[in-house]
Amino acid sequence: MEILIAKSAGFCFGVKRAMNVATECAGGEGAEDNGEIHTLGPIIHNPQVVKKLQDESSIRPAERVEDIASGTLIIRSHGVKLDDLKKAEARDLKIVDATCPFVKKTQQLVSELTRDGYTVIMVGEREHPEVQGVISYGNPEIIVAASAEELEGLDRKKKIGIVAQTTQSEKNLREIAGLCVTKAQEVKIFNTICNATSIRQSESVELSKIVDCMIVIGGKNSANTRRLAEICRSIQPNTHHIEVAGELDPAWFEGSKKLGVTAGASTPEWIIKEVIESIERSTESTLADKRATT
Amino acid sequence: MEILIAKSAGFCFGVKRAMNVATECAGGEGAEDNGEIHTLGPIIHNPQVVKKLQDESSIRPAERVEDIASGTLIIRSHGVKLDDLKKAEARDLKIVDATCPFVKKTQQLVSELTRDGYTVIMVGEREHPEVQGVISYGNPEIIVAASAEELEGLDRKKKIGIVAQTTQSEKNLREIAGLCVTKAQEVKIFNTICNATSIRQSESVELSKIVDCMIVIGGKNSANTRRLAEICRSIQPNTHHIEVAGELDPAWFEGSKKLGVTAGASTPEWIIKEVIESIERSTESTLADKRATT
Repeated sequence: MEILIAKSAGFCFGVKRAMNVATECAGGEGAEDNGEIHTLGPIIHNPQVVKKLQDESSIRPAERVEDIASGTLIIRSHGVKLDDLKKAEARDLKIVDATCPFVKKTQQLVSELTRDGYTVIMVGEREHPEVQGVISYGNPEIIVAASAEELEGLDRKKKIGIVAQTTQSEKNLREIAGLCVTKAQEVKIFNTICNATSIRQSESVELSKIVDCMIVIGGKNSANTRRLAEICRSIQPNTHHIEVAGELDPAWFEGSKKLGVTAGASTPEWIIKEVIESIERSTESTLADKRATT
Repeated sequence: MEILIAKSAGFCFGVKRAMNVATECAGGEGAEDNGEIHTLGPIIHNPQVVKKLQDESSIRPAERVEDIASGTLIIRSHGVKLDDLKKAEARDLKIVDATCPFVKKTQQLVSELTRDGYTVIMVGEREHPEVQGVISYGNPEIIVAASAEELEGLDRKKKIGIVAQTTQSEKNLREIAGLCVTKAQEVKIFNTICNATSIRQSESVELSKIVDCMIVIGGKNSANTRRLAEICRSIQPNTHHIEVAGELDPAWFEGSKKLGVTAGASTPEWIIKEVIESIERSTESTLADKRATT
């Protein structure tokens, strides 16, 4: 059996950067003493990585700023609510900002559009921490919508400003932009979608078309990994979403000629490696290429 | 037979205004001497109105500024190319600007978007005089597109600014706005479509649904009247586009219970009246209401 890995599987730029910031912060030799180090919520949506950081670097996730008495707060790549940032500052915590630069840009755009009198619409999922953070930079009138249908009944506005969650599909943004053109005389749209997601999705789709079995690796709590698995499954029904190598069942790829592997934006290289090695051990497989979608 | 007239049939705001400007300019008692009066192109796309103005007020259409030696130039509601305006100024003509204020606003927006570094796209028909006028306020890179398909191959741009011909359908603007979101990080859209057109179209559609015969009155050279006739015909195949009462054929509405009448933005009230009277004479008809779509 041949194993093919999607080129873009695993950490995106923002997650890689946040992980580096975290490990630097926990410090090796010569690092300054940052006291207790916390993240607000898990640093990424991957339980194995969160556990490893806790075991090796004593970085712990806290649910609320109020639960952190002192030391350092690392802001994860999703960013944070303005209100929580102010609370952390008031508690005199040392703040290390690992917000993804693309998310930070969106926060800034929302702030500017609000200042300039636009009714701001964010295309995204209201409960996602990135969205919660970004909309806190607007005013209470800010609207979150996951689809154009949700906005059909919107009253006419003078000016509408639109941004998107970095991991949204362009289809949603296109449809919402089109609808808003009929709801205001002026519409200003910033396409803040990060193409890492769409590239990962389209590479994984291509891979799904040519293999007999697809393995999608990533946290069960990771929205982008779950979406990746859904997309692959729509092409190749023999698709399996796993978090770790231990969940692999050799029956999935018994008799397969080609097996595809992809992973979400919050899946570290070491978990991908463990999965590949485990597949190789359980079959007579060769890795076609370190990173090739063919 | 009952005759129903669409409420919004006939002159729109901009055309009505241009006609008033023209007749004032030709003057009655006490009007200043404006010398020979010309319009650049027919003042509106209605041959009967153009002839009437020529016969009664000596207002003549000229094809080119170079053909006007002296006197007054009335700029019609469609507006004019910046270049022609400069030529007219250089020839020392008295300029009377009857550009529709909505078209003027679009010209101004194109000028501002160009100044602010946007790649400007105008949704419209390249050959239409309104479009020719508006795009002259941009730079040579300005793009005119009648549909999203025409823009599929567009290179990525930094910022895209979009305006529309006042008589475009919102469907085109929506689709082009949606596409452009994938072609630039920032897209600023001004919905410059005048709702007089869409209101006239939707009222005429409603009327077409309840009558046995539709009469659409307006210049054969009027784009908006031709489109109005097409839309009505798609609902009621027994639809006829006429310019004047003389073209009516009673066979069209023989045995009809209800007859609908609508007219383009450049059709004067007196032509609509002549058509109605002619229908009433040739049948035992009563006008249901002066202006009612029911």
